[in-house]
Amino acid sequence: MQRRKFISAALAGAGGIGAATSFPAPAIAQSMPAVNWRMASSFPKSLDTIFGVSERIARRVEEATDGKFKIRVFAAGEIVPGLQVLDAVQSGTVECGHSAGGYYAGKDPTFGFDGNIPFGMNARQQTAWLLFGGGQEQMRDLYKEYNIINFMAGNTGAQMGGWFRKELKTPEDLKGIKFRIGGFGGPVMTKLGVIPQMIPGGDVYISLEKGTIDGAEWIGPYDDEKLGFYKIAKYYYYPAWWEGCAQLSLFCNIASFNKLPKVYQAILEAACHEGQMWMTAKYDAQNPAALRRLVAAGAQLRPFSRSIMDAAFKAANELYAELSAKNPRFKKVYETWLPYRDEQILWWSVAEHSFESYMIAATSARSGKR
Amino acid sequence: MQRRKFISAALAGAGGIGAATSFPAPAIAQSMPAVNWRMASSFPKSLDTIFGVSERIARRVEEATDGKFKIRVFAAGEIVPGLQVLDAVQSGTVECGHSAGGYYAGKDPTFGFDGNIPFGMNARQQTAWLLFGGGQEQMRDLYKEYNIINFMAGNTGAQMGGWFRKELKTPEDLKGIKFRIGGFGGPVMTKLGVIPQMIPGGDVYISLEKGTIDGAEWIGPYDDEKLGFYKIAKYYYYPAWWEGCAQLSLFCNIASFNKLPKVYQAILEAACHEGQMWMTAKYDAQNPAALRRLVAAGAQLRPFSRSIMDAAFKAANELYAELSAKNPRFKKVYETWLPYRDEQILWWSVAEHSFESYMIAATSARSGKR
Repeated sequence: MQRRKFISAALAGAGGIGAATSFPAPAIAQSMPAVNWRMASSFPKSLDTIFGVSERIARRVEEATDGKFKIRVFAAGEIVPGLQVLDAVQSGTVECGHSAGGYYAGKDPTFGFDGNIPFGMNARQQTAWLLFGGGQEQMRDLYKEYNIINFMAGNTGAQMGGWFRKELKTPEDLKGIKFRIGGFGGPVMTKLGVIPQMIPGGDVYISLEKGTIDGAEWIGPYDDEKLGFYKIAKYYYYPAWWEGCAQLSLFCNIASFNKLPKVYQAILEAACHEGQMWMTAKYDAQNPAALRRLVAAGAQLRPFSRSIMDAAFKAANELYAELSAKNPRFKKVYETWLPYRDEQILWWSVAEHSFESYMIAATSARSGKR
Repeated sequence: MQRRKFISAALAGAGGIGAATSFPAPAIAQSMPAVNWRMASSFPKSLDTIFGVSERIARRVEEATDGKFKIRVFAAGEIVPGLQVLDAVQSGTVECGHSAGGYYAGKDPTFGFDGNIPFGMNARQQTAWLLFGGGQEQMRDLYKEYNIINFMAGNTGAQMGGWFRKELKTPEDLKGIKFRIGGFGGPVMTKLGVIPQMIPGGDVYISLEKGTIDGAEWIGPYDDEKLGFYKIAKYYYYPAWWEGCAQLSLFCNIASFNKLPKVYQAILEAACHEGQMWMTAKYDAQNPAALRRLVAAGAQLRPFSRSIMDAAFKAANELYAELSAKNPRFKKVYETWLPYRDEQILWWSVAEHSFESYMIAATSARSGKR
């Protein structure tokens, strides 16, 4: 009885009198259980911005739950190969994964609309489509068949078109070129006569050096600089018309997600949404200085010519017509995605693009630096 | 004793055996205290996107804390006049406020760098500067003198240049025009011979109708449509060179913020960062259809001429030189902000702008709609 008395008194002291009669403390404890998840990333740690956002999401979840909900992040290959993250989340091998829908276009090309499709939207437009244009609902219908619920979790912004050993002036110059390219750009390149090569990032430099490939695209100045392509393929083309943005997503196993308390679900979603903003900002912050260093080191900046862009645009539209004929789901999404993209671009051309165009003209004229 | 026994048993059942000996439940309860805050917004409810983001931040905080941290949002004028939000947070009348730094340029023009300055950065560049370019640190040094810690909390993107009854072709056409404009654009307009008028949104239509003013700027198609300016001033100019983006912020009273448990601080920051992404996406989603409706209703879209843009750019640079001479803090921030902006724009002109320019050209040619 003495011990019981002590326990009761101690509980009353720690949790307040109410704790012993209405049990609010245990109720809160139940709503904040210890949860440990593993996140498989499709990316190596060396991509410190893309990998960084997954770590940041995990850290935010942990600090917002007082350490109760922990997510341990694993780089590509540590527990799951980079391109099998969707499969690992689908099977429940890991509770979640950080990846890009476009990597799974081989399973269903509809994954490309998750922000990894040639001549798609820019990062802001993609975000608008996902959140407010019905995009997320359409993508979730698809991911659901893989036992996954997806959350936007980072975007690179428009990427660079890659490194070539020779200048490219017309679509003819693309024919027969062996070009390292990932994702949905490959099939469009094939239509242009390019021989696309899917080579992991770590092997690209040596392939270029040996002449196994004639060119390689990666991401943008900040990441490209680290791989050193400028030393052996100095023509640096822009833009990556196949990645006007590249959307990253957190894939959660649906059963695992549904087991989370609602509070944790809300925190995880908020952390992913914060990551969407954070990753683009980090790239925007890092790319300008990296571009300057690359140009100083000898990179020759070149825009793709209008004739190459037009040929690629035509090839992409042909591919989408073919995919629509074969795949009813692709067709269904494409038919709402396409007018949404075009309306976004029409509005973009007014305030945003005219402002940016003026700023480009005015600041280059003033400083005389371009 | 029977009653004690019952209580102990019930507690053991609810919180687990450990609850009675190591007290984890009360410890959690202490870290999740009930907190009630009030947020004063500078905006009316009718601006449902800008006001909406403040409500969304409050809702996210509430659901992420299981209802323990509640923030009640008040529209402009409900408890604090719209342009006195900074003062109310400074004095602790409210724990936090949702506002724009630019509104307080009269106290110190340095507030303009918080994303409300003519010929500033676009929304993404501004976010990069705040998070990774030292911008937030510099702004926090300023806000700290007003007992405030600030968090980015929404951005409109590039705004429209406003509605005029007459066409404007050269800088001469601006002279003597009475133009409703808020914020930092006013002093630049003055240098161009415009007579800036600060009129609250609700009174602008009648001022235009009566001829008290010759033109008015507001935000963008979605918000402008609701005020009906197209009926009486049909020339709709773009872009708002004075608002290439407009950054919104959550102002928190520092003492109130410091009293929050670390978990709540993390959740509040994450909710604001999510809001930064969410608000721009919502505007991006709403503006295209609103622009179409405005044009269908008779609005005449006009870009500001290059000569007007150049005159305004020159006037803004003169103003910044004058402010730098008078205000050492302004000078200090300007000297790091300016090269950061220019480097952002230089990089932007490569991948992002070339991609967007092509998409504008290709989609307008394809659909023949422009």
